[in-house]
Amino acid sequence: MTIAMQPPSRNSKPRRRPLQDSVVTLAHGSGGSAMRDLIDHLFVQEFDNPTLATLEDQARFDLASLISLGDRLAMTTDSFVVDPLFFPGSDIGALAINGTVNDLAVSGAKPLYLTCSVILEEGLPIETLTRVVRSMKTAALAAGVQIVTGDTKVVPRGSADKLFINTTGIGVIPAGIAPAAQQIRPGDVVILNGSLGDHGAAILVARGELALETPIQSDCQPLHELVAAITRTCPTVRAMRDATRGGLATVLNEFAQTAQVGLRLQESALPVKPEVAGMCELLGLDPLYLANEGKLLVVVPPDHADAVLSTMRQHPAGLESQIIGEAIASPAGMVVLQTAFGAERIVDMLVGDQLPRIC
Amino acid sequence: MTIAMQPPSRNSKPRRRPLQDSVVTLAHGSGGSAMRDLIDHLFVQEFDNPTLATLEDQARFDLASLISLGDRLAMTTDSFVVDPLFFPGSDIGALAINGTVNDLAVSGAKPLYLTCSVILEEGLPIETLTRVVRSMKTAALAAGVQIVTGDTKVVPRGSADKLFINTTGIGVIPAGIAPAAQQIRPGDVVILNGSLGDHGAAILVARGELALETPIQSDCQPLHELVAAITRTCPTVRAMRDATRGGLATVLNEFAQTAQVGLRLQESALPVKPEVAGMCELLGLDPLYLANEGKLLVVVPPDHADAVLSTMRQHPAGLESQIIGEAIASPAGMVVLQTAFGAERIVDMLVGDQLPRIC
Repeated sequence: MTIAMQPPSRNSKPRRRPLQDSVVTLAHGSGGSAMRDLIDHLFVQEFDNPTLATLEDQARFDLASLISLGDRLAMTTDSFVVDPLFFPGSDIGALAINGTVNDLAVSGAKPLYLTCSVILEEGLPIETLTRVVRSMKTAALAAGVQIVTGDTKVVPRGSADKLFINTTGIGVIPAGIAPAAQQIRPGDVVILNGSLGDHGAAILVARGELALETPIQSDCQPLHELVAAITRTCPTVRAMRDATRGGLATVLNEFAQTAQVGLRLQESALPVKPEVAGMCELLGLDPLYLANEGKLLVVVPPDHADAVLSTMRQHPAGLESQIIGEAIASPAGMVVLQTAFGAERIVDMLVGDQLPRIC
Repeated sequence: MTIAMQPPSRNSKPRRRPLQDSVVTLAHGSGGSAMRDLIDHLFVQEFDNPTLATLEDQARFDLASLISLGDRLAMTTDSFVVDPLFFPGSDIGALAINGTVNDLAVSGAKPLYLTCSVILEEGLPIETLTRVVRSMKTAALAAGVQIVTGDTKVVPRGSADKLFINTTGIGVIPAGIAPAAQQIRPGDVVILNGSLGDHGAAILVARGELALETPIQSDCQPLHELVAAITRTCPTVRAMRDATRGGLATVLNEFAQTAQVGLRLQESALPVKPEVAGMCELLGLDPLYLANEGKLLVVVPPDHADAVLSTMRQHPAGLESQIIGEAIASPAGMVVLQTAFGAERIVDMLVGDQLPRIC
């Protein structure tokens, strides 16, 4: 279904000279013909979306078509500064798509349209940029979203590190679906869709922090279909969030503070891959704070927990879903972890920084 | 009128420690408590928008309220990498607001909501960031838009130059207003709202390119009200664009190529301030290619030209409006300039780059 509207261009093919350059130059950001060539040969061609070729500065959508999908528009933005650009399991391009898709999905929205704004460092190989753009295209197809408009800026060598991407997305939330953290109440159940810390660990591997071979891959994936399955099973889902920077601990602390409830986790229920656990021990890191890019936290009323868990476990993005804890009356605003031995410790908000440029 | 919807938070005040830091640190981008403090003390406080304080990752808007304003949603994105951050007449903050407001306005849309995503270099003084954020707030108030959600990333020293901002905006286009470059036809009249090259020249001054004193100021300003006045006078306006990177010449070449018409300009009608003309002569620059940040190109049917010109001249952002040319049948796809002596020269698309990091 096409909602994005651009009238057909009348004889509007821009002059197409083959893209000769092997690296990004300042001319590619000047607004002139070099920039048009880069956009045409790379973004328009790869994203294969006729609306990008119209040279208008904005995308336009039919509101009647949007309102047929639901009653609210959701909007979210994220910039991606991950280093390195390519890492086991994914890359900055797929991350830029999935990160924004997921931030829309957790509001209950069907993600629809993304903008894509890139800041390029002079000297970035065109081949690198092409790889990233192709990855974005693949991810956008998988997530069912269209990239509808964009922007290209080039800064002199040294003023940025290779490539930064901003994606901003909109989607529509169906009537009756309204997750929000402040709805969480004592007795609610917390479910997680799989193993913690894979993305953060993959970045560490890619940075060569450890001189050992390990199969850890980023978990970067779109969660919109998993979310849709969850909301079909339980429209009254209390809250959902993807656990990215700052890890599971950060999201749960935000939930606890917003709702003024306690959240008690069972340590034995937290899934962590052995390779990730091992890396964390070696480096003195805590998987509760490591970044994820495909992990969903869901809080549901207790009488829906089993049905939602079952639904999640039938979905490719939720095969390893676990109930990991519950909301309690006190200590309000805090997260506590019950260890295997029955002791309890507080899981605070992340203080300081774990890993820079993780997403 | 408030369309943005966030349910009131129940006892959800986050712990507020005073912001102690004098510079941006990596912790401010980690997703943890330092980042929350920065967002709360700076962005939430300055932008004074309760929806930013809810800790949800996305903004939500009532679609019924949006559709009461028009039939199409417009969306646009831009990143701002201008150097220096502060320059005569404006700064990166106001630019980030007005640039996106104007890209929405030229579609005929009423600009409504912006997202704000910042990439900060470690070590950036908090005082600098505060100045920029306050400038964004002032500009947003003047443009009648709200900043509804955002993102903060911090990269290590040297990985970015001080501060980059992305703003992405949405607005609603009233029914019956549908400017699009391909509608331009021979006989149409081209109107410009004021002097060319002020912004580009102001940046050059700020960079110390010339050791002379000059009162040149950036023309950075919101154009949404001027556009609204134009569309009230002439709903059938053919096309509108703000002339930013690459200058007037770039926009007119894009118009000519899209519509496959020629555009003939009268050199004597092009307004250029003497200080800008003088600087261009000294530096070998052409004001037709210099960047603007408050200049509007409007193409109208010939029988509406006088009325639109009159409307524009009554508006603060259009006091110096001029008819600068007309659309002709040939040479199709090209822009020609008729000099004061009657000779004609072709005004090509910008080739190469004029000034990096102009916006």
